[in-house]
Amino acid sequence: MRAELVAVGTELLIGQIANTNARWISERLAELGIDVLHHQVVGDNADRIVSSIRLAASRSDVVIVTGGLGPTQDDITRPALAEAAGVALVRPPEIEDELRDRFRVRGREMPESNLAQADVPEPGRYIRPERGTAPGLVVSVGEATVYAVPGVPSEMREMMEVTVLPELSERVGPSALVSRTLRCYGLAESRIAELLDDLFHASANPSVAYLAGGGEVHVRLTAKAGTREEAAVVLGPLEERVRERLGDHVYGTDGDAMEVVVGRLLTDRALTLACAESLTGGGLGERITAVAGASSYFLGSAVTYAPAAKRSILHVSAQTLEGPGPVSRECAAEMAAGARRLFGADVALALTGAAGPEAHGGAEPGQVWIALNADGIEHQDGFRWPFDRELIRRFAELAALDVVRRHLLGLSLRG
Amino acid sequence: MRAELVAVGTELLIGQIANTNARWISERLAELGIDVLHHQVVGDNADRIVSSIRLAASRSDVVIVTGGLGPTQDDITRPALAEAAGVALVRPPEIEDELRDRFRVRGREMPESNLAQADVPEPGRYIRPERGTAPGLVVSVGEATVYAVPGVPSEMREMMEVTVLPELSERVGPSALVSRTLRCYGLAESRIAELLDDLFHASANPSVAYLAGGGEVHVRLTAKAGTREEAAVVLGPLEERVRERLGDHVYGTDGDAMEVVVGRLLTDRALTLACAESLTGGGLGERITAVAGASSYFLGSAVTYAPAAKRSILHVSAQTLEGPGPVSRECAAEMAAGARRLFGADVALALTGAAGPEAHGGAEPGQVWIALNADGIEHQDGFRWPFDRELIRRFAELAALDVVRRHLLGLSLRG
Repeated sequence: MRAELVAVGTELLIGQIANTNARWISERLAELGIDVLHHQVVGDNADRIVSSIRLAASRSDVVIVTGGLGPTQDDITRPALAEAAGVALVRPPEIEDELRDRFRVRGREMPESNLAQADVPEPGRYIRPERGTAPGLVVSVGEATVYAVPGVPSEMREMMEVTVLPELSERVGPSALVSRTLRCYGLAESRIAELLDDLFHASANPSVAYLAGGGEVHVRLTAKAGTREEAAVVLGPLEERVRERLGDHVYGTDGDAMEVVVGRLLTDRALTLACAESLTGGGLGERITAVAGASSYFLGSAVTYAPAAKRSILHVSAQTLEGPGPVSRECAAEMAAGARRLFGADVALALTGAAGPEAHGGAEPGQVWIALNADGIEHQDGFRWPFDRELIRRFAELAALDVVRRHLLGLSLRG
Repeated sequence: MRAELVAVGTELLIGQIANTNARWISERLAELGIDVLHHQVVGDNADRIVSSIRLAASRSDVVIVTGGLGPTQDDITRPALAEAAGVALVRPPEIEDELRDRFRVRGREMPESNLAQADVPEPGRYIRPERGTAPGLVVSVGEATVYAVPGVPSEMREMMEVTVLPELSERVGPSALVSRTLRCYGLAESRIAELLDDLFHASANPSVAYLAGGGEVHVRLTAKAGTREEAAVVLGPLEERVRERLGDHVYGTDGDAMEVVVGRLLTDRALTLACAESLTGGGLGERITAVAGASSYFLGSAVTYAPAAKRSILHVSAQTLEGPGPVSRECAAEMAAGARRLFGADVALALTGAAGPEAHGGAEPGQVWIALNADGIEHQDGFRWPFDRELIRRFAELAALDVVRRHLLGLSLRG
């Protein structure tokens, strides 16, 4: 099956944003074994949108149009798509009602201009949005099926995942491509590449690929076969060998982020977790609570950004704050002990450091201390990263969560 | 002048990378006042590259092709461009010598396959690379001038800056594009579009555009004129009218996020801020401390995810936790009061709610309460958003920060 992407939006043509939607959709379609042969980007201009959709429909089985479904005057994908298909737009009362309901729930009155979002090409169908308010559309243009989804990335992804990708998956039949991502922490990408060098060069099917980012490395194993079952059989032995080589640095698979894995371990052991944070400003707790259901094991986090708060809330000693300072092994250890007491938690995790760009508490930017405090264990570990503020904060959160993971699994702790 | 971008590379079509080159080039061309009407992406396939270049040349004055100029078998932009132009490729000895020299200087022998990089369409000319080894090309296809530059971003930028942009700038003559983004909170995109409807339709220059996302709306005003100064003069009166219509919903300009604006207001007034959070799990503090230098006004955040922590750390009353519950106006108010005392802050901000997907504390998913506690003021506000967990948390943070902004500016508070 051949697919083509058409992104609508002048903001793309003037370089305000990059077309990251195209990257995400292309990756998903590749996973389904669907060939994407062209991307197009076109501005908020009716004639050019119509021409672009027609061109795409003339050479592809499926066209995915992103953007231009919003409620403002420059959102004209709906009428353009109807024109490209040579059909009329109708406004089904039930969609109109649903749009009004969405505003009512939020206690806001719907501007009349919003009603254009209820327009659907006839023949054609609409895709109900779970997030946002912009319905998507499905309509035939010539031989091709054209899907129109919102340009806001979160709304686009939701609609693709819930509706478009499942429909396409059904059309292409039992897919030939099966992937498994092994998520690794604590090994550099180059070291992983060394360890897997022979497997990397061994074959194009199954294949090995690396993607590094956010402090971790994803090793992606892909197998292609007649059916998903056959592909899985090819993938199994490769996965086993990779796991042998990378050992306990493989912390999870596919979509399981570190916070999901840690949450599962805490749940299994019926343990509670509390945090004390400084340089991350709440990012550690934010990450832990990104997992739905975190309230069953996460009690809270004392974000003590000011040294005085470390003293008054966590009872870090004056001596530590003055001596080794707020960015020190000692301070991290006392913060963890303080958080465990404060929240009455089974396990407490503390993070302190200098996120930069300036030195902080006598420590150079990039210096981070992590401390764990649990029944019978006090552990600390230090890191120094030559990154920018945001990256240092993200790396610190991940490193801290990995300490909890290793502790709960009874693995050796460095530091 | 109309320009079009054609990116060549299968890695873009399988979603391995995003087309960030297109964003960068588009932004540069916009600054020169050149209209970019289409982007195309095509894989490493000769026929499709030829078709894409011909299509672009048929509707544009200038086409910029990125990628496919390297030395490997899948780099085929050179012959495809010659075919699109209907001309032959020649291999001038002086370019061959120059390529060999480049390798010699680096102490490496040149693989013979590299010689294809010396090929130049005749008639046509080549662009000498300063970095990398891939020469660029300039050739006419019909009425259009087609530039081919490398796909590696650093090599592409160098060639654009040294050669292509100066040539285009000369062709378009003095002209400039000036943009100003007004960041708005508290008005739906559709409502803003209604308020600015006449300005939106008034002229193509200066122009008005909208971009919504993350709970806020950006209104982008753009003016084109002979010089930057003239463009700024055109922009001024439009900005004034837009500001009149949108009033205090305009919270900042260009790159100033809400947390930056709030940080600046706190700094100006020499006030400190502390938070109490529940549903956001630390995300509010994380956002505030994303701004470098936040330690001068931000003291910390009590992330009390568990009801018991709200009680023991923030002293929310047992009556409130049992009666209206942890997701209530009363609880938010007591959390803010507790955080102000705990941190000794001038201003305290509290957030509690049900992020979903399940109901929490007797409240439906999407129900959020915000409370502000400052010298002589206690204010609460409630929201209900029909979004998913992540979006509800991000919207809650933004809404809470806007309450602080409005308080510090002495603006009316809703709720």
